[in-house]
Amino acid sequence: MSNQASKGSILFSSTGFSEQEWVSRIKALAPDREIYTQPHPSVEYAFLWKHPHGQLKELPNLKILFSLGAGVDHILSDKDIPDLPIVRAISNDLTARMSEFVIWQVLDHHRRGAFYRKNQLEKTWTDAGYQPAAHQIKVGILGLGELGRDAALKLSNIGFEVSGWSQSQKQIENVVCFAGQENLPGFLNQLDILVCLLPHTPQTENILDQKLFAHLKASGPLGAPYLINAGRGALQNEDDILQALKTGALSGASLDVFQTEPLAVDSPLWEQENITITPHIAADSDPDALLIKIIDQIENYEAGKNLVDLVDLNRGY
Amino acid sequence: MSNQASKGSILFSSTGFSEQEWVSRIKALAPDREIYTQPHPSVEYAFLWKHPHGQLKELPNLKILFSLGAGVDHILSDKDIPDLPIVRAISNDLTARMSEFVIWQVLDHHRRGAFYRKNQLEKTWTDAGYQPAAHQIKVGILGLGELGRDAALKLSNIGFEVSGWSQSQKQIENVVCFAGQENLPGFLNQLDILVCLLPHTPQTENILDQKLFAHLKASGPLGAPYLINAGRGALQNEDDILQALKTGALSGASLDVFQTEPLAVDSPLWEQENITITPHIAADSDPDALLIKIIDQIENYEAGKNLVDLVDLNRGY
Repeated sequence: MSNQASKGSILFSSTGFSEQEWVSRIKALAPDREIYTQPHPSVEYAFLWKHPHGQLKELPNLKILFSLGAGVDHILSDKDIPDLPIVRAISNDLTARMSEFVIWQVLDHHRRGAFYRKNQLEKTWTDAGYQPAAHQIKVGILGLGELGRDAALKLSNIGFEVSGWSQSQKQIENVVCFAGQENLPGFLNQLDILVCLLPHTPQTENILDQKLFAHLKASGPLGAPYLINAGRGALQNEDDILQALKTGALSGASLDVFQTEPLAVDSPLWEQENITITPHIAADSDPDALLIKIIDQIENYEAGKNLVDLVDLNRGY
Repeated sequence: MSNQASKGSILFSSTGFSEQEWVSRIKALAPDREIYTQPHPSVEYAFLWKHPHGQLKELPNLKILFSLGAGVDHILSDKDIPDLPIVRAISNDLTARMSEFVIWQVLDHHRRGAFYRKNQLEKTWTDAGYQPAAHQIKVGILGLGELGRDAALKLSNIGFEVSGWSQSQKQIENVVCFAGQENLPGFLNQLDILVCLLPHTPQTENILDQKLFAHLKASGPLGAPYLINAGRGALQNEDDILQALKTGALSGASLDVFQTEPLAVDSPLWEQENITITPHIAADSDPDALLIKIIDQIENYEAGKNLVDLVDLNRGY
């Protein structure tokens, strides 16, 4: 096979993903392309999840960087990335899985999961007292991209009163959309459950801190508000979350992401009865669903069509 | 005030409800009616939740029996009830709350809640392996009345593949509807999660038993199927559920109702790691939402209009 006949080749570079499994999936979906797991001058497309920094700087044929997750913070944090289009992995599969997680955790707080589990351990038959209905509970989504929009619509369908906040104004049916820094306090101070689905950018880093929690209302039908973070660990200040739980500014939290992952065994977060910890599994996407979309994008690009889900470097996602 | 000017009076009779609280709610909503808490010859309407049996047999002016819950088994089990219309409490409020509970428990099994909670206790950061997406999970609703229909639609909106079974054929968008005894095995043997929302009648008593579990498939994307019962305790054989968990015919269960309530402290159900126990709280309705609808029905009836949500004594609900 001559070089001209072969299609653009691929670099797969990750930390924490099974290289063997992913490469064999890519081969099955793109049998007509070379796949490298180390930098090689011929690669045109890079499939990246926490690649070793510096690795991409001298690849003369590289054309597009594909993130194997919805976030691109792991790419942008490499100071040596070439000036090329970056594409995020946004798929219906990933979006639907994130909504499953968000609804699961919203309902677990709303319906007093921790209380009933504790009672079961103690063999105690007692209800939690007045149970508000979903329509009495105000759930707010911080971040109204594809993920936030889908979660908001599905929570609204269950009956929750849903609002959301984003940098730029959005319009979503049955969802009150707040926009811009100046409207963040007004968004926060009406919520019973705050769900964070923001991307990690310099602007959002450490946003879930004492300063933000101070804008939450003191009490509603569930008591103090609950926090769910399924965005990125770098968005949260874990000391401030612990402090907010201690003072009662927060009733509880669901954390799927952490400042350092895996969460250290000596982190005090593990032992909090009112925190639910999951090991960054909110939206583990089906690799094939992800790869099919990326390879479609490559085929489209080679046919002269435009890329979608491109990262805007000004906003950082 | 003459007898002619006053409106038909009400008997409130319950076990387990706060009489004082309910009577004051009824008074607030129907200030122009007498309310009795003991049988009285003048009462025209009875509001019932597990009333003392025999209590209704000599009330010459009694016209309608209203159940204060969706089920009417607690009324029909009284051999001395007069031959009068019986009205079930079906409200959007109760229906929405039941769907909250069903979605919560479906997601808790689907997303491996028990596994991650155990890991948190052990401070273990590890995922559950392959996580199927909702669209790969077949959820089946046993009972497609108002409650089953609403839960089915909302589960489908989240992405689950939903089917349902009822005695008579139903039609629900995006939901495969099975009907009749002969199609029960075919309904059961394709499911990953079985949700029971049947009423308690002589036909459904003890339906969740070894014989029914034998029709479930051995394994699917979640392993063996899960059971959720939020209908009535009399539908389930608790010994058979324990046995099915032991043999692996069931992966786990969520039980909100029990053969005897409160669940006895020495019941082995409490200690099963793969059973979630809640104290009959799936759909505790807002009393006012319930009472407003009942009092509307009385006003309509006195204005010569038809009652809705009438019990069909032939089918028993």
